[in-house]
Amino acid sequence: MFAPIWTLPSAKLLAGRHDRIMLSLMQDAPLLVSGILDHARRWHGNQEVVGHALEGGLHRQSYRATAARSCQLAHALTDLGAQIGTRIGIIAWNTHRHLELWYGVSGIGAVAHDINPRLSSQQLAYIIGHAHDEFLFVDITFAPLVAALRPQCPSVKHVVVMTDAAHQPEDLPGALIYEDLIAGQPETYDWPQLDERSANALCYTSGTTGNPKGVLYSHRSNVLHALGVSAKDGGNIGARDVILPAAPMFHANGWGIPYAALAHGAKLVFTGRHIDGPTLHSLIMEEGVTLALGVPTIALALLEEAERKGDVWPGLERFIIAGSAAPLSMIEAFDKRGVEVVHCWGMTETSPIGTSSAETARSAQGSHAERIAARVKQGRPVFGVDLKITASDGTVLPHDGQSIGALKVRGPWVLKQYFGAEGPAVDTDGWFDTGDIACIDEDGFMQITDRAKDLIKSGGEWISSVDLENMVCGYDKISQAAVIGVPHPKWDERPVVIAVANPETQVSQEEVLDFLKDKVAKLWLPDTVIFTDALPLGATGKVQKSDLRAQYADLLQSAAS
Amino acid sequence: MFAPIWTLPSAKLLAGRHDRIMLSLMQDAPLLVSGILDHARRWHGNQEVVGHALEGGLHRQSYRATAARSCQLAHALTDLGAQIGTRIGIIAWNTHRHLELWYGVSGIGAVAHDINPRLSSQQLAYIIGHAHDEFLFVDITFAPLVAALRPQCPSVKHVVVMTDAAHQPEDLPGALIYEDLIAGQPETYDWPQLDERSANALCYTSGTTGNPKGVLYSHRSNVLHALGVSAKDGGNIGARDVILPAAPMFHANGWGIPYAALAHGAKLVFTGRHIDGPTLHSLIMEEGVTLALGVPTIALALLEEAERKGDVWPGLERFIIAGSAAPLSMIEAFDKRGVEVVHCWGMTETSPIGTSSAETARSAQGSHAERIAARVKQGRPVFGVDLKITASDGTVLPHDGQSIGALKVRGPWVLKQYFGAEGPAVDTDGWFDTGDIACIDEDGFMQITDRAKDLIKSGGEWISSVDLENMVCGYDKISQAAVIGVPHPKWDERPVVIAVANPETQVSQEEVLDFLKDKVAKLWLPDTVIFTDALPLGATGKVQKSDLRAQYADLLQSAAS
Repeated sequence: MFAPIWTLPSAKLLAGRHDRIMLSLMQDAPLLVSGILDHARRWHGNQEVVGHALEGGLHRQSYRATAARSCQLAHALTDLGAQIGTRIGIIAWNTHRHLELWYGVSGIGAVAHDINPRLSSQQLAYIIGHAHDEFLFVDITFAPLVAALRPQCPSVKHVVVMTDAAHQPEDLPGALIYEDLIAGQPETYDWPQLDERSANALCYTSGTTGNPKGVLYSHRSNVLHALGVSAKDGGNIGARDVILPAAPMFHANGWGIPYAALAHGAKLVFTGRHIDGPTLHSLIMEEGVTLALGVPTIALALLEEAERKGDVWPGLERFIIAGSAAPLSMIEAFDKRGVEVVHCWGMTETSPIGTSSAETARSAQGSHAERIAARVKQGRPVFGVDLKITASDGTVLPHDGQSIGALKVRGPWVLKQYFGAEGPAVDTDGWFDTGDIACIDEDGFMQITDRAKDLIKSGGEWISSVDLENMVCGYDKISQAAVIGVPHPKWDERPVVIAVANPETQVSQEEVLDFLKDKVAKLWLPDTVIFTDALPLGATGKVQKSDLRAQYADLLQSAAS
Repeated sequence: MFAPIWTLPSAKLLAGRHDRIMLSLMQDAPLLVSGILDHARRWHGNQEVVGHALEGGLHRQSYRATAARSCQLAHALTDLGAQIGTRIGIIAWNTHRHLELWYGVSGIGAVAHDINPRLSSQQLAYIIGHAHDEFLFVDITFAPLVAALRPQCPSVKHVVVMTDAAHQPEDLPGALIYEDLIAGQPETYDWPQLDERSANALCYTSGTTGNPKGVLYSHRSNVLHALGVSAKDGGNIGARDVILPAAPMFHANGWGIPYAALAHGAKLVFTGRHIDGPTLHSLIMEEGVTLALGVPTIALALLEEAERKGDVWPGLERFIIAGSAAPLSMIEAFDKRGVEVVHCWGMTETSPIGTSSAETARSAQGSHAERIAARVKQGRPVFGVDLKITASDGTVLPHDGQSIGALKVRGPWVLKQYFGAEGPAVDTDGWFDTGDIACIDEDGFMQITDRAKDLIKSGGEWISSVDLENMVCGYDKISQAAVIGVPHPKWDERPVVIAVANPETQVSQEEVLDFLKDKVAKLWLPDTVIFTDALPLGATGKVQKSDLRAQYADLLQSAAS
């Protein structure tokens, strides 16, 4: 008459005195990315994805067509031997085909591995090899890059160019053509009922020193994150929204937007290769965009374009700024245009949403100026994320708006371990140390007060000062080097090298930059090289970068953009 | 160097050709109800729950205090022997103590079993016995009820009255006192890390004929449901909301609101025992309510009170109407007051949210009148729920706004099996037949066109016609009886008996109603008994209730409320 009491296989999960489990009688429905696509197809089939095609023109297709094409791709991948766990590298802008790839790849249990094309050839080859990508899907714009890269990527069995036969690039003569591959394949796929903890996506971060590290997302983490990022106090995403993600899909899991939009039936608007002010502005004017997302640099470019044109955005309600701190002046400029800046914090390791500056009943009681000013803080954790700040000895610090400590995070869409790493990336209680330094006020609003102090953030991306130092020091005329982030009016920060030349050696800035040119992504190339006789050292013999930062704080203030 | 490929223990879940799994490296953080409470305590500790206390006055306490008291209760329950799986019966109105019970009970892995006090004594005893409740928590208003019921409930070891010593009711002299029980207990609890599929709550439905059936919810289903019901196109719940659930917590899992509110930091406003127009109206006027929820009957009572008072609600934005169809006139009346009616459909078996009438970009293009009229439909499935309508042979019917069929539903917060049942409640593909009849239009908006045809819905609750017929026929002067739902201006429908007396017997309506009085809840007591010589029979010998419904359709149109 009563439901059975099962003995728990994983009884160790339970507290000591509890040695039984009473399972509920709800459905065992796994949280799968294929479920998002199916939902979009069945319930938002008429909704659209619109975007600039790389072949030219604005491409427009329904979610019904997107689902059909994703299924065709899934069949094509299966025919080519892709299996559960197969890594599929992607070097591409935000386009409808990129979206189809995410769903087609995840659907069959393979792993979509988005790669940042701005990395150096060396870094790209490292990442592709480390991930053991067997497929490489590339946009036509990256054909030359991939042609040069190909010999260094022995794991890659198939290169697929994301275009049609008419636009096949000359650089990749042997590559497969996306449209030919999917043509004639069935438009439905009987998706496997995977374990929801299965991997579905992989994204490398260069957020810390050393080689890039991979974060291996799961179906479960991405579906839960889609719910979290869509929450009212997160992205506030529903079927009437038109979303313009100015964050590339290769940046931090695409900020989860390609999942959230289809889950809730929001229209997606893609920039293609042109992530710039004029492109964003015209899409906002023409496509009814309600929500845009991007780093401060791109938000600023949009504001400048709108000012220049003198246009009033017809439907834009919110701009989610993340990836770097949004300055007050930017928040105010959007507010004057009737657009709410939702300031968020997150990272590749957190899928990425961690916090959002959405107001509470109490914080909303302030004056308008106070409420705008409060948005400089990165805000409160969305439900699903837990945060704490700790002192150097691990003591949890109070929420008093004064105490500053290491920001730690945990939750179902936070990583446990890097891909291929020997050990966990979290402590025994599951806390991941973000490397950021923050304080939290009485109402729970968190503010990043300093980032991992040596990292340089430029245009929303991390640049490792230690990596650059190592490279500079690789030049045989240099004995010592420190690289610091110097404030820059457009890029937030730019790397600057302070170097000590070998004794009795003549060396110029041009020589150093020329030496670095082929070793780093363009973004990483320092703006200036300054020569000095000695670097300031601290008591333990370490270079005092804080002194250098203070000394050169104004160096680039008058730099042209 | 690469993450391991594990062999899948449950490989049968995978499609034939896939026999491996590649687990992701995200955190294994279970979705637990204790996680909701912890989040509320840490990030929304100053937020409030406010409500009418049964002892009199308006009680107000923070979520920080709610969490502390829930932990105290958890310790008290553990001291009294409650374990994982222990069922804890609750007969109570919506109050802060009821909220604490949900979290304290779930936190330790026990099962909160809310019981509808409007059921008959016989039904109550059945349910308590079937659930094997070991504890019974009761409000002071239900002390007489429980005193009479106690001898019929052998499973119950402890009765706890939800009050303080000063208000101990005389009817239950031996009962424990809630405030005495928790006093002095520690204000934190090291919650067990349960399997998220563990049961945390139990709710019986009397939606079909026969005995009530229990739905056994899990931590996972309730956390996911909290996210689903909070979505923008569902309840649209965030930290600035003030929520007044006029649906009792014993009704269909409390509509998930006690979970959703704490997850997102919304303020909760409770009515206590007075779920009526004046109480709702004054709470809306005084507490800044933004979102209220209830059945059409209570929504109507609220509208009438506001009209009578001539007040303008200061902050009310949305009224979620569910449990019964909302008529157009009601939707229009709220619209005139600037309040959006969100018409939802769900049931105890679906946790309960299934669909919501939130607009899409396309449906929002109509005229104001068209958009209001569209809200008569119960709407589209929130993400996490899938629906279909099928013909009698199981064929899936198209979304054409014309085809009418059996409404079936599935998803992670839909039941798989009733508590204690021998077999599943769903078909082999996981579809649960709701017993409702519906159509779905081209944009995916579902409308219930008929309910399981013999059930009677009155004041938002189901009344089983077959159960009533069986009881009426138990009266020895009656030979045959049919019970039908007759439209009623206030109650939606009321039960009416059409009876055939034994030959050569005199019997009055009063006699029949008097006979039923102690056997059924007051709500179930028929309005009228009509005597006839014979019931209309169909070809297979079954009573044709549709004929009777047509014949008596206007019987109660002039009934006083």
